[in-house]
Amino acid sequence: MNLLENIQGILLMGPGPSSVHPMTYYALSRPTLGHLDPYFINIMDEIKSYLKEIMGTENNVTIPVSGTGSAAMEASFVNVIEPGDKVLVLINGVFGTRMVDVAERLGADVDTIEFKWGTSVQPEEVEKKLNNESYKLVAVVHAETSTGVCNPVEQIGDIVSKTESIFLVDAVTSLGGMPVEVDEWGVDICYSGSQKCLSCPPGVSPITFSDKALAALNNRKNKVPNWYLDFSMIIKYWEGEKRSYHHTAPINMLYGLYQALKLILDEGLNNVYKRHQDNHEKLVKGLESLGIDMLVEPDFRLPMLNAVIVPDGADEAEIRKKLLEEYQIEIGAGLGPLAGKILRIGLMGHTARKHNVERLLTALENILN
Amino acid sequence: MNLLENIQGILLMGPGPSSVHPMTYYALSRPTLGHLDPYFINIMDEIKSYLKEIMGTENNVTIPVSGTGSAAMEASFVNVIEPGDKVLVLINGVFGTRMVDVAERLGADVDTIEFKWGTSVQPEEVEKKLNNESYKLVAVVHAETSTGVCNPVEQIGDIVSKTESIFLVDAVTSLGGMPVEVDEWGVDICYSGSQKCLSCPPGVSPITFSDKALAALNNRKNKVPNWYLDFSMIIKYWEGEKRSYHHTAPINMLYGLYQALKLILDEGLNNVYKRHQDNHEKLVKGLESLGIDMLVEPDFRLPMLNAVIVPDGADEAEIRKKLLEEYQIEIGAGLGPLAGKILRIGLMGHTARKHNVERLLTALENILN
Repeated sequence: MNLLENIQGILLMGPGPSSVHPMTYYALSRPTLGHLDPYFINIMDEIKSYLKEIMGTENNVTIPVSGTGSAAMEASFVNVIEPGDKVLVLINGVFGTRMVDVAERLGADVDTIEFKWGTSVQPEEVEKKLNNESYKLVAVVHAETSTGVCNPVEQIGDIVSKTESIFLVDAVTSLGGMPVEVDEWGVDICYSGSQKCLSCPPGVSPITFSDKALAALNNRKNKVPNWYLDFSMIIKYWEGEKRSYHHTAPINMLYGLYQALKLILDEGLNNVYKRHQDNHEKLVKGLESLGIDMLVEPDFRLPMLNAVIVPDGADEAEIRKKLLEEYQIEIGAGLGPLAGKILRIGLMGHTARKHNVERLLTALENILN
Repeated sequence: MNLLENIQGILLMGPGPSSVHPMTYYALSRPTLGHLDPYFINIMDEIKSYLKEIMGTENNVTIPVSGTGSAAMEASFVNVIEPGDKVLVLINGVFGTRMVDVAERLGADVDTIEFKWGTSVQPEEVEKKLNNESYKLVAVVHAETSTGVCNPVEQIGDIVSKTESIFLVDAVTSLGGMPVEVDEWGVDICYSGSQKCLSCPPGVSPITFSDKALAALNNRKNKVPNWYLDFSMIIKYWEGEKRSYHHTAPINMLYGLYQALKLILDEGLNNVYKRHQDNHEKLVKGLESLGIDMLVEPDFRLPMLNAVIVPDGADEAEIRKKLLEEYQIEIGAGLGPLAGKILRIGLMGHTARKHNVERLLTALENILN
């Protein structure tokens, strides 16, 4: 038996992966080329140029990492952090917490400011902290996938830019679903994942390094303690006349990313953002009419990740199970302190369509009544 | 313009990636499922069982790493090595050299035995070394992709098994093209890549950890200094009743791997190995009749990676360029001290077919005459 023959198509409305456009599936199945084939290098160059546009940056080093979003998080820290470096992480969910773990494993001296899960980072608190202490790097998650909160990266960027710190932003869930303006917001390192609003299957992850971030890499005392993710070598494969082999690039995944980025740019960034916002509003309205409340205050809600409070008396695991088995819709559970208390509904990329919102609302209505 | 529309199919006869079977391309384009979807977990379990069979092991921890073969090399070292640990690396090519770099970045105290590129590791030398020194880990490359040499892993395993050392083997190029018997040979950690003899595009990489290797992981003084590749967490996603989310698995790449492994097992491991050997012999005979010599002595030649000496007066870059542009065949250049001196012809996985050997020989004959 071949299990692949019997995969049932599922509407992916969880915290990622999101549903994939047919053209992106097709892209994945195009003929594999060698990683130094001149034609493939053209595709690499296009991917870089598409990523720059979507990330709002002129950074030359704007490339996909050969791994999932967590590999890009790892790459962000390991390339610039050395043991003893002071790092400030702003935490209001799972992914801020994960950043602390990643940085501490590298020997960083990590300081944090914590905010209640479901609320946003307060720029005033960051300002207060930075007035008293200096850090090599300040890190924040733009769209906290675990809570559905949007953090005010632009405002935090204004504050960090008055210091010497490298400003690191996790845009795993935001990129491609709402504006991410790396250069305008003074972001030095920004990474994302393919399987959220870019709607490419998981496996490659956009990242960008500013000149300031590259200077930190170039001024290291020791080699990057991670050969696979060492950007001083990886850059030589992605740039210049002569491309030096580092590791074999994930060719077909990069075809998928190329196509997924192209679909977004062909639709137009602003149209894509509006589609996310419109469908989010439609979803919220529909949920409210079912008596389901949102976790996050309106001003800080993400369009692409909707954390909803499990209705009184309802069994959240049962809701997810029924949605998956009876309606072929996947949504996500709560994590950490929010486990059992919330459900996470994704409207990411190709998933953010009116008919998907309607299908979910109808299914939820049937299940809850 | 969509660059993907105009990709010309290339016969991949280099050092990897290899040509991909149509069913594996199809697998890559199957509908993406969530990484915790019960149906996807069935596919994960099948992949583990297929990998165990192909790697010749009963190790429970036999899984794909979410990255290319170099990520698996990184994972092999970073999970068991701590600063100051003594490591012995046997070097006779690029990938042995790379292991030293990977281990040193992690703070290992690395000792080496070097053998001339193009010759094999001498077990007697290893025995002599191990009689005088003890190491936490001894590492060797089974199939040196840079030179086409097969190292005697079984004999080295006999020697290492008399010590306390963890025995680490790189089977990136050998797995799926010749026997790799992890348990029988006393190998503790073995990794491979998808894009060589498994004939799946690059992006996921099989790895296996014995109980001894896992004990080293569990007895670490400090956390693994690499969150993304920390097996103490990754194992919890790949094993047991409750699968814990660590990072989002590369779903569609895993479909590809599933299909690629299934094709090999359906054909039968011994048939696959024989197909590699037969086509290798046919290639060597054909090359000899063109007056082209092999770099490696017959006893140590790999079937899937054929290092040939550039004929006197021929321009190796020109040969590769003509093969690619005029015949749509990719072969590889020499690396390091062998750059310009050899060409590398891959017969890996789906590429190892009689008609491909004939197509290459005809093209070479035309180009050289």
